Amino acid sequence: MKILIMGADGYIGWPLFLRESMKGHEVAALDNYFTRRRVKEVESDSVSPILSLSSRLRKLSELTGREYPLYRGNASNPSFLLNTVREFRPDAIVHLAEQRSAPYSMLGLKQASATMSNNILSTMNLIYAVKEYVPDAHILKLGTMGEYGTPNIDIPEGFFEVSYNGRKDYLPFPKQAGSWYHWTKVHDSNNLMFANRLWKTPITDVMQGVVYGTRTREITETGLYTRFDIDEVWGTALNRFCAQAVAGLPLTPYGKGGQTRGFLSLEDSINCLDIALHKPPAKGEYRVFNQFDEHYSVRYLADTVKKVYEAEIGRTANIVNVENPRLELEEHYYNPEHKKLRSLGYVPSSTLENELKVILGDLETWKKRILSLRKVITPKTFWNRSSVNIPGVQTPPGTS
Amino acid sequence: MKILIMGADGYIGWPLFLRESMKGHEVAALDNYFTRRRVKEVESDSVSPILSLSSRLRKLSELTGREYPLYRGNASNPSFLLNTVREFRPDAIVHLAEQRSAPYSMLGLKQASATMSNNILSTMNLIYAVKEYVPDAHILKLGTMGEYGTPNIDIPEGFFEVSYNGRKDYLPFPKQAGSWYHWTKVHDSNNLMFANRLWKTPITDVMQGVVYGTRTREITETGLYTRFDIDEVWGTALNRFCAQAVAGLPLTPYGKGGQTRGFLSLEDSINCLDIALHKPPAKGEYRVFNQFDEHYSVRYLADTVKKVYEAEIGRTANIVNVENPRLELEEHYYNPEHKKLRSLGYVPSSTLENELKVILGDLETWKKRILSLRKVITPKTFWNRSSVNIPGVQTPPGTS
Repeated sequence: MKILIMGADGYIGWPLFLRESMKGHEVAALDNYFTRRRVKEVESDSVSPILSLSSRLRKLSELTGREYPLYRGNASNPSFLLNTVREFRPDAIVHLAEQRSAPYSMLGLKQASATMSNNILSTMNLIYAVKEYVPDAHILKLGTMGEYGTPNIDIPEGFFEVSYNGRKDYLPFPKQAGSWYHWTKVHDSNNLMFANRLWKTPITDVMQGVVYGTRTREITETGLYTRFDIDEVWGTALNRFCAQAVAGLPLTPYGKGGQTRGFLSLEDSINCLDIALHKPPAKGEYRVFNQFDEHYSVRYLADTVKKVYEAEIGRTANIVNVENPRLELEEHYYNPEHKKLRSLGYVPSSTLENELKVILGDLETWKKRILSLRKVITPKTFWNRSSVNIPGVQTPPGTS
Repeated sequence: MKILIMGADGYIGWPLFLRESMKGHEVAALDNYFTRRRVKEVESDSVSPILSLSSRLRKLSELTGREYPLYRGNASNPSFLLNTVREFRPDAIVHLAEQRSAPYSMLGLKQASATMSNNILSTMNLIYAVKEYVPDAHILKLGTMGEYGTPNIDIPEGFFEVSYNGRKDYLPFPKQAGSWYHWTKVHDSNNLMFANRLWKTPITDVMQGVVYGTRTREITETGLYTRFDIDEVWGTALNRFCAQAVAGLPLTPYGKGGQTRGFLSLEDSINCLDIALHKPPAKGEYRVFNQFDEHYSVRYLADTVKKVYEAEIGRTANIVNVENPRLELEEHYYNPEHKKLRSLGYVPSSTLENELKVILGDLETWKKRILSLRKVITPKTFWNRSSVNIPGVQTPPGTS
């Protein structure tokens, strides 16, 4: 199978590239190193010491004896993406090449608009590239569970039966995202659903939960590490709590910590994407997977990290709730369905506790790197302070 | 009241400018003449002979004795829009400055992506401009009834109570738009709803039906005409049928003609927008109006134009159904609610038949101009043929 992985240099993209290449598939990488550059802009870095993408690909070639094409460029550039698809002619394309940070999108108008255009246009380019050159190819697109928000009812997998004024229809579930970034994923989902209606493009739209972990079964040596971010802009809750514990810093749930989200380990994320790739949708099918293992409150996760850290490492960890930079309910109902991937064979590979032991073990060896980043962990990007930050625009005194 | 009208050179923008200025409000115009340029690109023109925007503004100044600022530029350029709002400091901003043609957005990737970025970024700029400089100003944004598509249940005004698995919530109604253009309006609506959640910006999001007509009460002389488009890209159904009748061409409903949509006259559209402006939402309110008078099938409209034309003008009109260039149900349930504007005082000003008499009378005087455009009326923009048309991208033989 020929697979093009867009965003192959990323946290998920690289382990997925390892999985599919080691299974013997013909895999091509596409990336423009956007995340690497933007992480440096906030004076942060991957805590795991990662090689360049081309070095990792060389390392991988040594292991498998095969060559992997690397397309370096921006997926939101139409001629670049279209020419790549035309040349490589993949059977499946995994789209992980979007700006992926909610806080980044909330920094101000500049980043909000850049996230809108980058994410939406990359998906539009992909839609037309597939329609034109490989109309039967499967688009596997990463969305987020955050598209749904936290409605006070169960969340189905994409669609549900609606009754209204005595009539019924089967409709897309209403979305209520919580950042500009999350909204771009909603816009993408809508555009993909329409592309499928227009041209019967087979599409899997993955509503993925928050991913945690440092390893997958293929990451057995340092040269194959994937990135691991812990700063307030590019990191996510559980990974950050682990890093805080290792650095001797308090674990900092935002607000009350009753925010509940779906979570899954990096190994499980790759397992699910692998299932989606190899059990593709039928021609004409647009399917939505809610991709996570369990849902947890942020409070429960902080408590669990503390417990595992103290038992395994033998030092004390503290929890200090901090002002919530986001706009979100801190106590709410949450019950998303997630049956489809299980019905295709997905079985969670580990438990939260066991996975945390692996993460904490890795982070202990990267402790010095974590300590050097301690000042970029504290939240500084507040949703309600998102500003106008456009060159040539004067802002009124005291507003930004 | 200080009102900034974005897209003041347009079909709706200009009559709204006339209304508010003649009522004595301080009104400023913003436009970049995008529609004028793009209409020329498809070798078409406004059937009504319109003056330039600056000439119309001069004419208006002669009538009212007041001056009206004209901001010439692109609303999707952040520094232009932000500096305009900062300078003019409006109490209300009407956003009509988007690419407004569904067929244009379906021409190919280039126009699809341009419609995405132009429309979405102009609204993002507006959101931040208001947040930063005039946080209590009312955003009156033009969306479209086409955002909803044609679900098999009633369509509420924006939000509805949903029951699912025994629990209830009040949620945004699921959208199912039918072109890239219509989807940009959905994306805008979602972004505006989120802006309201972030910063309590008062917003009216207007889901407007298809507008028909040549006149409003203020358009009493030729120098004040608004544009009137009849070509397949920039025209709309009812206006086109009237032009076809006058030109002695068959009226051409697309497909079976059972497509049903909400319609309202130009005078009623301006009446509704005027009500929305002067009965603004409360601070913190995001309200959605379904803005139309009646819903009609395309078939009924063709029949009615034929009937009125034959009775008034005394010549025969023919109806010939043509292949539908769009992707849409041609027979379907349709029952959108539209109570909110009526509860604020909106009363339809005329009947379809009486309005058609006025339109046909005007078009008779523009008959020569209509005849010169007869070749651009026939549909050429087919949804399923939307192509890759990006410079530097080679398309496979026979695909576009």
